[in-house]
Order: sequence, then C-alpha cells, then structure tokens
Amino acid sequence: MAGDKLTHLTGDGSAYMVDVADKNVTRREAVASGRVMMSADTLAAILAGDAKKGDVIGTARIAGIMAAKKTHELIPLCHPLMLSKINIDIDQGTDFTGLSVTATVSLSGKTGVEMETLTAVSVACLTIYDMAKALEKDMEIGDIKLISKTGGKSGTWTRGA
Amino acid sequence: MAGDKLTHLTGDGSAYMVDVADKNVTRREAVASGRVMMSADTLAAILAGDAKKGDVIGTARIAGIMAAKKTHELIPLCHPLMLSKINIDIDQGTDFTGLSVTATVSLSGKTGVEMETLTAVSVACLTIYDMAKALEKDMEIGDIKLISKTGGKSGTWTRGA
Amino acid sequence: MAGDKLTHLTGDGSAYMVDVADKNVTRREAVASGRVMMSADTLAAILAGDAKKGDVIGTARIAGIMAAKKTHELIPLCHPLMLSKINIDIDQGTDFTGLSVTATVSLSGKTGVEMETLTAVSVACLTIYDMAKALEKDMEIGDIKLISKTGGKSGTWTRGA
Amino acid sequence: MAGDKLTHLTGDGSAYMVDVADKNVTRREAVASGRVMMSADTLAAILAGDAKKGDVIGTARIAGIMAAKKTHELIPLCHPLMLSKINIDIDQGTDFTGLSVTATVSLSGKTGVEMETLTAVSVACLTIYDMAKALEKDMEIGDIKLISKTGGKSGTWTRGA
Amino acid sequence: MAGDKLTHLTGDGSAYMVDVADKNVTRREAVASGRVMMSADTLAAILAGDAKKGDVIGTARIAGIMAAKKTHELIPLCHPLMLSKINIDIDQGTDFTGLSVTATVSLSGKTGVEMETLTAVSVACLTIYDMAKALEKDMEIGDIKLISKTGGKSGTWTRGA
Amino acid sequence: MAGDKLTHLTGDGSAYMVDVADKNVTRREAVASGRVMMSADTLAAILAGDAKKGDVIGTARIAGIMAAKKTHELIPLCHPLMLSKINIDIDQGTDFTGLSVTATVSLSGKTGVEMETLTAVSVACLTIYDMAKALEKDMEIGDIKLISKTGGKSGTWTRGA
Repeated sequence: MAGDKLTHLTGDGSAYMVDVADKNVTRREAVASGRVMMSADTLAAILAGDAKKGDVIGTARIAGIMAAKKTHELIPLCHPLMLSKINIDIDQGTDFTGLSVTATVSLSGKTGVEMETLTAVSVACLTIYDMAKALEKDMEIGDIKLISKTGGKSGTWTRGA
Repeated sequence: MAGDKLTHLTGDGSAYMVDVADKNVTRREAVASGRVMMSADTLAAILAGDAKKGDVIGTARIAGIMAAKKTHELIPLCHPLMLSKINIDIDQGTDFTGLSVTATVSLSGKTGVEMETLTAVSVACLTIYDMAKALEKDMEIGDIKLISKTGGKSGTWTRGA
Repeated sequence: MAGDKLTHLTGDGSAYMVDVADKNVTRREAVASGRVMMSADTLAAILAGDAKKGDVIGTARIAGIMAAKKTHELIPLCHPLMLSKINIDIDQGTDFTGLSVTATVSLSGKTGVEMETLTAVSVACLTIYDMAKALEKDMEIGDIKLISKTGGKSGTWTRGA
Repeated sequence: MAGDKLTHLTGDGSAYMVDVADKNVTRREAVASGRVMMSADTLAAILAGDAKKGDVIGTARIAGIMAAKKTHELIPLCHPLMLSKINIDIDQGTDFTGLSVTATVSLSGKTGVEMETLTAVSVACLTIYDMAKALEKDMEIGDIKLISKTGGKSGTWTRGA
Repeated sequence: MAGDKLTHLTGDGSAYMVDVADKNVTRREAVASGRVMMSADTLAAILAGDAKKGDVIGTARIAGIMAAKKTHELIPLCHPLMLSKINIDIDQGTDFTGLSVTATVSLSGKTGVEMETLTAVSVACLTIYDMAKALEKDMEIGDIKLISKTGGKSGTWTRGA
Repeated sequence: MAGDKLTHLTGDGSAYMVDVADKNVTRREAVASGRVMMSADTLAAILAGDAKKGDVIGTARIAGIMAAKKTHELIPLCHPLMLSKINIDIDQGTDFTGLSVTATVSLSGKTGVEMETLTAVSVACLTIYDMAKALEKDMEIGDIKLISKTGGKSGTWTRGA
C-alpha cells in the first residue's frame, strides 16, 4: 500500500534533494536482486567460460561494485554516501534459465542505501548482457527489486513481510 | 538461438575491449524498453504530481539521457562513443500498472548502441523508483530488453522477428 | 575588505588542498544566486514551454543539483563532501528580463559549501543557456555571487551586511 | 532577436538530445569570456602570488580546460564531443577591478562548441573564486557570454555584429 | 635524446590543450608495460588465489581497461578519444619476483594513445597493490614505460631502437 | 614479510568491498613517493619552463590532487572517502636525473589512505610524462611506493623500519 508523499517534490512540485542533516547516523543495509534471462545455450557458454577463467561473472561483479559507488552521479536526487561495504553474488538461476544477481550494500550513515543496492544489481545485469550479447540479443533483464532493508527511522523492512 | 562466441574473451578467457577500428562507420540506432511496476496508488500519485509539474517523469527522462552518455564508464568493455541522439519516452503502462520506459539512441559510428540504450532505460527506471520509494518499496523494475537495432555489419534486428 | 592569506597556497606558493580534519562538524549552509539575461522573446518562449511541460526550468534545476555533487571534481582544491540538501529555485527576474537562479546547499560537516552552491547556480544558468541558445546566442550569464553562509568557525556571513 | 524554436523540446514539450548524425563535419570554434570582480586588495594578493608561482591563475586555467572536457556530463542535453583544442587566457581586467577569463575551444565535428567554451569560462571563474575566497567573499562572477562562433550550417556569428 | 619543445606550453609558458584538428586520421597503437615487485610469499598467495578464481588479476585487468577510458579526465591536457581497442596482459615476472603488466591501446584517430596505454598500466598496477596490500605494504610499482607506438606523423617508434 | 589473507576475496575467491563500518574513526595519514627518470636535456627544459611559469610542475601537482579524489572510481574495491588534506611536492631528483614526486594524504575516517596517496603520485608522474613526451619518449616512471602510514588499528608503519 502506498504512503502519503513524494519526498523529492517541494510544495509546488519542483524537484530537490531532501535534507538528511538531522537524521541519525545508524548502521543501514539493503539487499536487492535481479536476473538476466537467456537461452540454455547462452547460459552454458557463460558458465563454461566461467569455469575456465571466471571473466563474465567476475567482470559483472566488479562493474556492479563500481556502479554502487556512482549511484549519486546517476540518480539525480540521491545523496553522495560513504558506503562501507558492497557485495555482489551471481549465481545460476534456480527457477529460470539464466543468472541471478544479489547485491548487499551497507554503511553507517544518515540515509539508506536502497538505490545503491538496486543500481549495483542493474549494472551487473547490464554487464552480463554486454558480455554475452554476441551470443544472443534476446536476453531480458528483470525482477529487479528490493529484498530487505535495515536501519534508519523506518527500521527493518522485508519484501512480502 | 545462441551464436558462437563471447567476443569479450580472448583465447585464454581473459577480458579485453574488442577492436572496432576496422569496422565501417554507418548510421546505427537501437531501441530498448523496460517498465516499473507499482501499485495503483503510487501510479496515481506520480501522475497527479506529473499533471502539475512533471518532475518525476521529467527527472527520470533527464537521468536516462545522462546515463546513456556514461555507459562506457559503467560497463567495463563498452567503447566510448559520440552519441548523436538520445530520446526517452515514459508512458503509463497499457497492460500493467506502472510506467513504461522506451529509449532510442543513435550515432554514426563503428559500433552499435545497444548497451547505451539499455543503460538509459535502466537508469530512467531506477530514477522513477527513487522518486517514488517513499510511497512504496515494493515496486519492481523489469522487462528490460532490446526491441530493435539497425546499422552495422549484422544489419537490422527486431525482437521476435 | 580583503583578508590576509590565500589558504590554498603553501609557503612557497604551490597549490595544495588545505587540511580540515581538525575543524568542527557543524551544520553549514550557503545560499548563492545568479541570472541569465535574455530578450523578452526568448523569455516568453521559455515560459510558454515551461507552462506546458516545465522542461527548460526543470532540466536546469536537475543539472544544478547534479553539478553541486560534482563540485570537488571541477574545482581542483575543493574537498569531497557529503552534502545533505540541495535546493534550486528558478524564477522570472524582477528587475531584469530573464531568469533568476538561487541555490541553497547544506551539510553537517567540517568545511563550508560556498563552492557547491556557486557551482550549482553556474551550471543551472549554463543549462538554461544551452536549452535556449537556438533562440538567442546573445544571452548573458551574470551576477553570480554568494548571498549568505552559516556555520563553521567564521559563523554567519550575509552579503552587504 | 529570438529565433523560432527550442531545439531540445519535442513536439509535446519533453526534453531530448537532438540528432546531429546528419550534420556535416566541419571545423568549428567558439570564443567566450567572463570575469571575476573583486576588491583591489584581493586582486593585488592574487597577482603577487602569481608573480611568485602562478598558482591561482595556473590552477584556474587547468580547471577550465578539464571542465570543457566534462561539459556533456554537466549540461544534460549536450553531446559528447572530441574536442581538438582548448585554450584559456586569464588577464587583469582593463575596465574593472578583477580578472578576465577568455576561452577558445575548437573541434572538427558535427556540432558546435559554444557550451564547452562557456563551461570552461564558468569553471575557471569559480576556481579563481575558490582560491581567493579566504580573502574576500564579496567577489562576483559575471559577464559570461559567447563572443563568436565559426563553422557549421549557421556559419560565423560575432556578438553585437 | 630530447626534442625541441614542450608542446603543451604557449609562448608565454601557460598550459593549453594543443590543437589536433588538422592532424590526419590514421590507425595508431601504443604498447606500454610496468611491474609490481613483491615478496615471493605475496606472489604465491596471489597466484594461488588466481588459480582458484582469478580475481586479483582479473580485477586489475578490468581496472586498467576502465582507466584507459578515463585518461582525459586524469591527465589535464589529454584529448578525449574514441579508443577502439584496449588489451591488458598480466603475467608472472620473468626476471623479478612479482607481476608484469602490459597494455595495448589503439584507435583510428588524430592523436596518439601513449598516455592511455601508460594510464592503463599504472592503474592495473595500483589495483594489484590494493588487492594485496593486506599481505605486504612493501610492494613497489616501477618500470612504467612506453614500449612502442605506431601511426601518426612521427610513425613507428620502438624503445631502444 | 607477507601477512595471511587477501582481504578483498571472499571465502570462494570472488571480489567484494570489505566492510569498514565497525572500524574506528581515527586520524589517518599516508605518504608515498615516485619518480620520473629522464634525460638531462628534458629535465633542463622542464626546469627552465618551470622557472618562467611553473606549468609542468604546477599542472602535475593539480592533476595529482584531483586524482587522489578519484581513487575510488579507479581502484575497484576502494571505499569512497572524505579526504581532508592532499599535498604534493615535486622536486628535482637528488640521486637520479629527473623529478621526484611525494604525496601526503590524510583524513579522519574509518579506513586508510594508502591507495589515494599512491594514486596521486602515479597520476602526477603520468602528467609530467605527458607534458614532456614531445621532448623524450624514453622517460620512465618508477619507484612508486608507500613511505609511511599512521592511524588505524595497525598503527604506524614506516618503510624499511
């Protein structure tokens, strides 16, 4: 169910970056996930390449980590943050053909890291697409969503809970 | 159906940026789309805000355009390109509750703009999420896919064709 | 009246980034303004476009916010800062033909945000110029100045006070 | 006198990056200028420092050159360009107390470099302000304007001509 | 033996970005190398980790590729370039204890890619240092030098030839 | 002598950004150095130019300062940090023909600044190379190493001590 206000809009509807100076410094963490759906042939090629040198998955993981640090340059109203941890897991999908990406980002700060986590997932997925697109252009990126967040005034939130 | 090689891997499996110096300069264009799925309440709030000042959708459009120009900084093996056109359309979904994002990117150059187009879509979707997340954390980003590409040696490709 | 030292120069005149580690963390805020002077026809066209969709002014506002976050990448001796709030107002000039830009930036930190505020104003003005330059190349950007600052050891400063 | 359209707005008023793929590659150059007005004491301090080591003016020149290369990251609808030359001159004002900044940017390409030139001037002025603000907060940046442009379909344009 | 002029200095000694608009578009390539010297224990740990997952070397290779694309943002007077190929090889040193980094960068353009190649080598070396510094702080980066360049008016140059 | 673990690798060998949220905020400082070796003719030309306007050395100093602020964008697993001081000294080599670069970086924070300091040195050296390469392509960059670090759990470390 929806809340009651779009926090990035001022009274007259124009965009601004909300003030977080008076929010408390707490430990905050968010987890998000996404997936790249592809043909069995493409997946097999990636995994075979990965078995030898790990570069598709390794490159996507690095790209996701670096993208988390760029979130405030990409999303206009995000605050610059001193992220203290970024972790990205990429695994074979269990209920679909493709790769599953999960990111965990945390910091000790005044605002949450949901967007940093979602950005890390998105760019890791895009990098997988880039590195495999010579094999298949039909791949699809989806199911990008927040799984959980902890810390801050609103406390713990878990998807579907 | 999958092709036959991962072009970003050398013979021994390590990543590199493929050489495009000898490819022809042609007019190239790509179209990609994606969507942000949300509750009817969230969509109504965005559209109502949009009716007044247009900032959620306008901000997402600007973020997507700027992100297309940053693609080579985000995706490790993408070439820097002189994009000649970037256009982003954001509309109410017709067969789902939420917003549909479509990006068109083109250039006259030696390599395609699929990744620039997909990156523009992804960041526009993330920006919509960011600006509405105070209303709803359950939103989901998905269906990010290439719709068509034209130009280059491989010529025109259309999804599902 | 001028003070007594150029803080960015060492004893022998070479540039360095001054140490702020021992300064106090206080709430700091700065306000700056600037203007884009143009013909009445250009202003009318922008305002008419703005009345319909708000894009010239909305785009300039987003550009100014994003530029504030890039200040330390643009101004060589500025410190990277975790800005907590950025707000940009763009209004029709009252004593000149054109648009007036006012930015407010704040943080809780060890050094002031004057440069972030002035950078936000400058880039918002440049964006207005860019979006209207097909109408008129004679526009002029000017009157970029600090209006006030609060916080820090030197306390509150107000222009002309 | 104003022209007839805002080229960055589509028919329905939303922003996009205009297509330049079909424009001709020509030699294009733009010259712009601006100024930082300050007290005689501040100017004397800068010039004296400059006489010894040149750092205020030298740093501002480097900042302006680097900013020209970042224009497309700052101004949302500017195209990425392969600038072929950037030059910045900083001189003592002849009819005001302060420093005068003039930038010249050129390339062989499909679109003009007015915004790159104006951005270089703006950031050089901001850098002068930053390096001297411990002396004087009352400085003012102004008179930022295009002086001339050559090349492209619209040919040569000179301010006031 | 040294040549006769510092091309980045104007007649009066101030820095500017030299004009390359009238230079010919030719295929240009440069090769550079460098090394990270370390203890046998550190090298063994990296190679053992690499045998399992390849991440130290794989991460350094990605960092070097991405850094080549950022050269014009790092080196003040470098031109933005559309690099067409970047390749980085990292091998065990043959006549020293440590890792040897070799980069090859090429483009079809108006100016050479020596700095892009040297920057790729430097950042790959720094990344190796970063990822192994918990093991040993005494590592040393050195022997960073241009090996060869081809293309352009000055033609082919080979170190020591 | 080598320590016992590669902190950037998880149990299964994949890269991640280590969590520093629970580390103490302390004053941390690092000093690093490097050198650019060149012919006596090249050195003389740089010093002569420098005597007049200081631009080669002044530009390299600015480039090094700005690069320190970009470290987390260059080195994949480095944390974004709020650096409080950056200083770069460039002097004539005492036991070699060329220029010696020393950087000092400090902050009050949760993680050290070794990589920021080494990055500043590396980019200052690359900038010297760039500005003098028209004189001599045989220059070599080397001896890049950490000299000392203070602060943090591991306390003070001095090279060779």
